[in-house]
Amino acid sequence: MSDNPTACLLIIGNEVLSGRTRDANLQFLATGLGEIGIPLREVRVIPDVRATIVETLNAVRARFDHVFTTGGIGPTHDDITSECVAEAFGRPWEPHPEAVAEMAAHYQRQGTEFNAARMRMATMPEGAVLIRCEASAAPGFSVDNVHVMAGVPRIMQSMFAALAPTLSGGAPVRMRAVHADGLLEGRIAAGLEAVQRRFPALDIGSYPYYGRGAGGGTGGAGGARGTGATGGHGVTLVAKGTDPAALAEAAAAMAAVVREAGLEPVEGEPPPAAG
Amino acid sequence: MSDNPTACLLIIGNEVLSGRTRDANLQFLATGLGEIGIPLREVRVIPDVRATIVETLNAVRARFDHVFTTGGIGPTHDDITSECVAEAFGRPWEPHPEAVAEMAAHYQRQGTEFNAARMRMATMPEGAVLIRCEASAAPGFSVDNVHVMAGVPRIMQSMFAALAPTLSGGAPVRMRAVHADGLLEGRIAAGLEAVQRRFPALDIGSYPYYGRGAGGGTGGAGGARGTGATGGHGVTLVAKGTDPAALAEAAAAMAAVVREAGLEPVEGEPPPAAG
Repeated sequence: MSDNPTACLLIIGNEVLSGRTRDANLQFLATGLGEIGIPLREVRVIPDVRATIVETLNAVRARFDHVFTTGGIGPTHDDITSECVAEAFGRPWEPHPEAVAEMAAHYQRQGTEFNAARMRMATMPEGAVLIRCEASAAPGFSVDNVHVMAGVPRIMQSMFAALAPTLSGGAPVRMRAVHADGLLEGRIAAGLEAVQRRFPALDIGSYPYYGRGAGGGTGGAGGARGTGATGGHGVTLVAKGTDPAALAEAAAAMAAVVREAGLEPVEGEPPPAAG
Repeated sequence: MSDNPTACLLIIGNEVLSGRTRDANLQFLATGLGEIGIPLREVRVIPDVRATIVETLNAVRARFDHVFTTGGIGPTHDDITSECVAEAFGRPWEPHPEAVAEMAAHYQRQGTEFNAARMRMATMPEGAVLIRCEASAAPGFSVDNVHVMAGVPRIMQSMFAALAPTLSGGAPVRMRAVHADGLLEGRIAAGLEAVQRRFPALDIGSYPYYGRGAGGGTGGAGGARGTGATGGHGVTLVAKGTDPAALAEAAAAMAAVVREAGLEPVEGEPPPAAG
């Protein structure tokens, strides 16, 4: 995957940092970007604070091939992403002729006033390329390698569907998984590390689950809890990368590690928890 | 809230960046940290890459009063958070005497081997203070202002319950909300901005919802979609801060903004979507 272009996601919004809203965009974009071969390498969630947004944008756009932002492009005072992108690039923030024309036509059809607040959504960094979408009359936009999208998941997904085909990705990132109920991470650690050494171009990971895949979670201190198979608890071993042949070999090697631990490997992720 | 200590969360794990796992810790910690008056100001999701973890830790621990990490403290080769914390602080990474003794006793009771992989979970930066919890025999730990927790949500929550009472927070961050079906952001933007100017110590935000609160989402380009009340679509206005009296006044002012737009404000968030 080291040859693939890289992506960073900026989630802009106080409502995610306060816990009011549970972000629904990270996983969607992580999956979608992997499929087009632009793997997500970092995510930052930052508040609606001008200096923070500008500084963060400039840090990450220099570091990653693509930066995707979600949130802060609506009509209210706390929607400041667009003007911050202009400031970060040192460009004027001005009405975008095509966006103005298209939104004016939209509001006229709807019989709605195209007032100053709504005009903000047609105001963009000079030279912005519109990301039009089915779900909203207010477009997103790209400036160089920064792609500015809505935070509302339905609208963001519609914008990403329009944007993705215009990006030059690398080989798709694929995944192979093997799991076994009753497996403990502490028993397979040495064997799994050997698999990682054998396939340095792949990411090999292990993820404990509880209650038949209900665990989810973001890492794990599992493996510290006793022996024996408890109902639906186990570990999933995952190999990730762009080379299907290497992934198939790694999957076989991971299955062998599970067998060495005295358990029967099952291909794929464990089924989701009932209920 | 400007007097409150600040928090940053580092979510460490390839599985979140690849989309395999949906993070379940951000919203829990955002809410819990607000309640103890240590509001979350930034989140970064980073991969299991040593140089990235060390560099990020050093950047954020200098910038925020507290740094919380989730993920990467299990027994397998991809669990490298603990040794990265040691490197970031320039401290030896060594067996923690109390952790070793407690985990050895645990595994002996279970009849499980305390092998090299499990011993990794008792190996910590010199001087680490243990975060013991109900959910796992392998503890988290703190080094100065960095608090290292598991990624598995059940275990992380148990660790945070143990850790939170030991932290000195500020005034709890509270929230007041007003919503109205049929409201459009583009109609209330000017009035809401005036509310923000009147209460500079509060965060005033507006969040469109679709299908009676089903929208969720992280920001919004809403308000571009026609007029008129559509079933269960609307906008929630939110005031956030530490001063209950100011919050009550702001809630009343937000309700007045909704009334000026010709709609009847309803206190609180809209009910969740059915199904």
